[in-house]
Amino acid sequence: MSLLDRVLGKHLASQEEEEQKVGPLTALPMLGLDALSSAAYGPESALTLLLPLGALGLGYIGPLTAIILALLVILYFSYRQTTAAYPGGGGSYTVAKENLGQRAGLLAAASLLLDYVLNVAVGIAAGVGALVSAVPILQPHVLGLCLLILAVVAGVNLRGIRESGATFVVPTYLFIGCLMLTLGIGVVRSIVSGGHPHPVETPPVLPAATAGATLWLLLKAFSSGCTAMTGVEAISNGISVFNKPKVLNAQRTLTLVVVILGVLLGGIAYLCRAYHIGATDPSGPGYQSVLSQLVAAVAGRGVFYYVTLGSTLAVLSLSANTSYADFPRLCRLIAEDDFLPHAFASRGRRLVYTLGIGILTALSALLLTAFGGITDRLIPLFAIGAFGAFTLSQAGMTVYWRRNPGETPKEQAKARLARVINGVGAVATGIVLLVVLTAKFLDGAWITVLLIPALVILFLCVKRHYDHVARETDCPHPIDLSPRLPPVILIPMKGWSTITEQALRFGLNISPDVIAIHISTDDSDARLLQDSWIRYVMEPIRTAGLTEPHLMVLLSPYRRLFHPLTDYIHQLKVAYPGRTIAVVIPELVESRWYQYLLHNQRATGLKAALLLRGGPRVTVINVPWYLAD
Amino acid sequence: MSLLDRVLGKHLASQEEEEQKVGPLTALPMLGLDALSSAAYGPESALTLLLPLGALGLGYIGPLTAIILALLVILYFSYRQTTAAYPGGGGSYTVAKENLGQRAGLLAAASLLLDYVLNVAVGIAAGVGALVSAVPILQPHVLGLCLLILAVVAGVNLRGIRESGATFVVPTYLFIGCLMLTLGIGVVRSIVSGGHPHPVETPPVLPAATAGATLWLLLKAFSSGCTAMTGVEAISNGISVFNKPKVLNAQRTLTLVVVILGVLLGGIAYLCRAYHIGATDPSGPGYQSVLSQLVAAVAGRGVFYYVTLGSTLAVLSLSANTSYADFPRLCRLIAEDDFLPHAFASRGRRLVYTLGIGILTALSALLLTAFGGITDRLIPLFAIGAFGAFTLSQAGMTVYWRRNPGETPKEQAKARLARVINGVGAVATGIVLLVVLTAKFLDGAWITVLLIPALVILFLCVKRHYDHVARETDCPHPIDLSPRLPPVILIPMKGWSTITEQALRFGLNISPDVIAIHISTDDSDARLLQDSWIRYVMEPIRTAGLTEPHLMVLLSPYRRLFHPLTDYIHQLKVAYPGRTIAVVIPELVESRWYQYLLHNQRATGLKAALLLRGGPRVTVINVPWYLAD
Repeated sequence: MSLLDRVLGKHLASQEEEEQKVGPLTALPMLGLDALSSAAYGPESALTLLLPLGALGLGYIGPLTAIILALLVILYFSYRQTTAAYPGGGGSYTVAKENLGQRAGLLAAASLLLDYVLNVAVGIAAGVGALVSAVPILQPHVLGLCLLILAVVAGVNLRGIRESGATFVVPTYLFIGCLMLTLGIGVVRSIVSGGHPHPVETPPVLPAATAGATLWLLLKAFSSGCTAMTGVEAISNGISVFNKPKVLNAQRTLTLVVVILGVLLGGIAYLCRAYHIGATDPSGPGYQSVLSQLVAAVAGRGVFYYVTLGSTLAVLSLSANTSYADFPRLCRLIAEDDFLPHAFASRGRRLVYTLGIGILTALSALLLTAFGGITDRLIPLFAIGAFGAFTLSQAGMTVYWRRNPGETPKEQAKARLARVINGVGAVATGIVLLVVLTAKFLDGAWITVLLIPALVILFLCVKRHYDHVARETDCPHPIDLSPRLPPVILIPMKGWSTITEQALRFGLNISPDVIAIHISTDDSDARLLQDSWIRYVMEPIRTAGLTEPHLMVLLSPYRRLFHPLTDYIHQLKVAYPGRTIAVVIPELVESRWYQYLLHNQRATGLKAALLLRGGPRVTVINVPWYLAD
Repeated sequence: MSLLDRVLGKHLASQEEEEQKVGPLTALPMLGLDALSSAAYGPESALTLLLPLGALGLGYIGPLTAIILALLVILYFSYRQTTAAYPGGGGSYTVAKENLGQRAGLLAAASLLLDYVLNVAVGIAAGVGALVSAVPILQPHVLGLCLLILAVVAGVNLRGIRESGATFVVPTYLFIGCLMLTLGIGVVRSIVSGGHPHPVETPPVLPAATAGATLWLLLKAFSSGCTAMTGVEAISNGISVFNKPKVLNAQRTLTLVVVILGVLLGGIAYLCRAYHIGATDPSGPGYQSVLSQLVAAVAGRGVFYYVTLGSTLAVLSLSANTSYADFPRLCRLIAEDDFLPHAFASRGRRLVYTLGIGILTALSALLLTAFGGITDRLIPLFAIGAFGAFTLSQAGMTVYWRRNPGETPKEQAKARLARVINGVGAVATGIVLLVVLTAKFLDGAWITVLLIPALVILFLCVKRHYDHVARETDCPHPIDLSPRLPPVILIPMKGWSTITEQALRFGLNISPDVIAIHISTDDSDARLLQDSWIRYVMEPIRTAGLTEPHLMVLLSPYRRLFHPLTDYIHQLKVAYPGRTIAVVIPELVESRWYQYLLHNQRATGLKAALLLRGGPRVTVINVPWYLAD
């Protein structure tokens, strides 16, 4: 078993694909982590923006959460329908492309790709940030920890689909279980105590209000809260990972994710009001996350507190996994339409799209390194991609229902309802997109506004190149069988040896026109070769009465090899019009890589140069000579 | 004029070699800087070790310098004779090899190579160190300055022999002139004042003695002072750079260097005693170099002081140039004897040995970077290489004179005298080598003792490999003209296109046995190709009544390309015993490098894999297809 096999797992055959598929419970950690982990930062970021309102701010968290939950319900039904309509994988790209046109599809794709990369960087950095604030001794190793987690997530994903789901099952369900338990106990106590529960550990007192509630402030709080919805589209993008029945399993997973996310968001908002928990200043000394305050208030700081917080950190870091599930698949869809290099559509040893995983890892590592593992400044860029894709996908679905109105009256009624739901979804997410863009434009959202069209332009350039190649290489005609003369053989020769003998034999075997060429930088080499040539080549050939090859000696006063050779090839092209010039390159093959350091790499350079600059009539023949050990 | 032409100069033809040669005055900055710059640190390092003796130490500098000067005279006569005996370039390598055997030659070569690398790093670091102590604002940029100077020296040397001599003429003669003037004035004043001159600026008072003079202390001071002699061998190594009369010019340069060096060393020692100048603690706050004190004492701190010190810094940094003159030439000699890769013997565009310059620069940059530009700890390693080479060279010369005793009585008398001189030289330098080794063994000289044999072992391994290749490829017999069947042609084919059509035409043109092979990872591709094959290939070929090629479709369940292909090649080898299997690889050639990112680099990988692992009977034919712009 080789090292690669050990690290990445054995090769999987293409027909083993079906065995790699998963059910809802395994799919949840793969595709749902991005959405679920939002519960840990969505409410927190909304509350942080409400800080200037002091205790009054808590009054707004209820209505804001209600709007977000309503949006979530709309999104749920929209994507449920999308999943049913596009059982082959109905990501925003496919839906927008098929219903709104290729450009809209590319816009959605670019938005999502950007969002996925940001999700990896921000998720891992958030998890490590929380870990470091709990264990300050790790402070100097922030970037190292980020890159370590990135490597683990990437490695697990390279091992295949099943592996990534299975690996992340424990932290995911631990996180859901602990948080649900906390919310349950908290809600029961709150109801029992008539809405005023007594906290086990009293949360910090909220500061006095420093400003009044303005529409602008509430809009900003809302757009920050909306980050809680990112990741909901992941399941419809990733239908291909499910085992049969695909659509039903995908819908079940979607239901599971949305219900859990809804309960978490609603429960957190309710308990924040009941226990008077607000955000604390993230840059201040007494910073405590909202979740930390909440668990401490409900259950105190015992073992349970640390298990809950620990699993939250893990889930935040691992939310990167959702990007790993979807980014490579989306790249593959785009590549299959010729908008990205075809290599994105090649499956590696474990049936995953290796190049996509590699690129995602490289880009995320770059972002993490550039920002030193502290990605706060990237958060404003977040959510715009997601809501852009949401809007395009919903808008596409309304067109879909118009085109597929159904045949029976029952189907028609259903399609009309579906169209209304998707229409409402499109308008709602469109409004949110505008709000988020406006509220965060100066904070960095403008970067997204520049990057997404740039990506679309890149897609279009790639497509144009592929179209050009396809046109140029299209061969809708029979092979040209007009009689041709054999190629003119040209053999660069430094001296007479078994290596050059073998090359010369090959040349004489396929053509009567053979020319050996010696580029001379040293007279004595040339004389030696000329002697051997007469003795070992010409004499036996004359004796046998065969067609004689020629030896050309070219002087190279500037000790160059390639220029005299190409000049001579040019002369040959003129002297033998229409014939192929086949340059036979004798090459010594050695058994150890380091032995190549001992020889001038002239053959390698010559091959590359002749291929790239020789012109259409020059063919390169490489005759190897194996060195015995 | 291309950028490379601008930076490195135009290509020089091989016959322009003679015009690149230089006379003694230009050779001095090239080959003599290493020796001359020693005057700036040799006395200083001896005096530093005498520090514990206080003012008493000054009493020993006279006798120590006298011994060093005596050694210098012996070395001068020895190398003068060597130069005459080996007009082709009588470096220690050549002399030891021809008279003491190949192993002794390699030992000398390894010692010298190591010494040259150390000289570059230590020289540049010393110059920059002095500069920084004068201009403390540059302190944070020590390493940057070191690498900058290294780049300048390397660049100038890449431009050719003449350039490096001409560039360094001004600082070299400025240094010699200023120092000579200082010594002249100082000596005259000292004599006029009866041995007790009045200093313009009084040097720091010497500290009180903290120890008595032991033999061990004096030995250490002596071995440090001996670093003043390193670089004397450079001229005999570099005879090939001189114009005619070579030997005479080389001897003149040697005389010039030794006389100047001797005067400088003697003058400095005399004035140190006269003006009561000793070393100051290099790590203490009031550190001042001996030369700085001396110039200030004689001439005060005016413009002259700064010009003298400035040229000293320049000469220290540029002493690296001597290594650049000799290291590549020595590598070339070793490479011509097959003990180093042959690429070391290739002359670049300006007739210099580019690879040697590159390796020397890389190793020096590595040393400088590893030590952060502060190479004090490397100084103990210094001088051992030089004295090792001295000893081997002198010992070799004594053997030379025994073998060439001369014919006439006059010649015989001359040879006997020469042998005595070289014998005395060998014994003297051998003793110094032992002293230096003993005195500095624990300070780091042990590293040299390990490195030099390691280098020799490397040389021997390289030689063994070249011998093996030469034996294996030697072809002292006529070409085998026994009739051969044409090669079996195998063409990997992904689909039918103008690219594959061209490859197929080439194959059909040179052999009747043509097999196209399709490695299938996707059924639809295979079907498409099979349809095109029948329509565009088989039908016209049947119509024309030609030999039919075959299309093989191989399934690759693990989506591998290379394994099924090599398996099939193996079957072909068995099916067609004794015949060459020529794999024709169709390849798309694009006009821009970045366009290659858009295509899987299968052709490139396949070519390399077939070449390295295909086996002796597999030949690779590359048929390019040029994409129109």
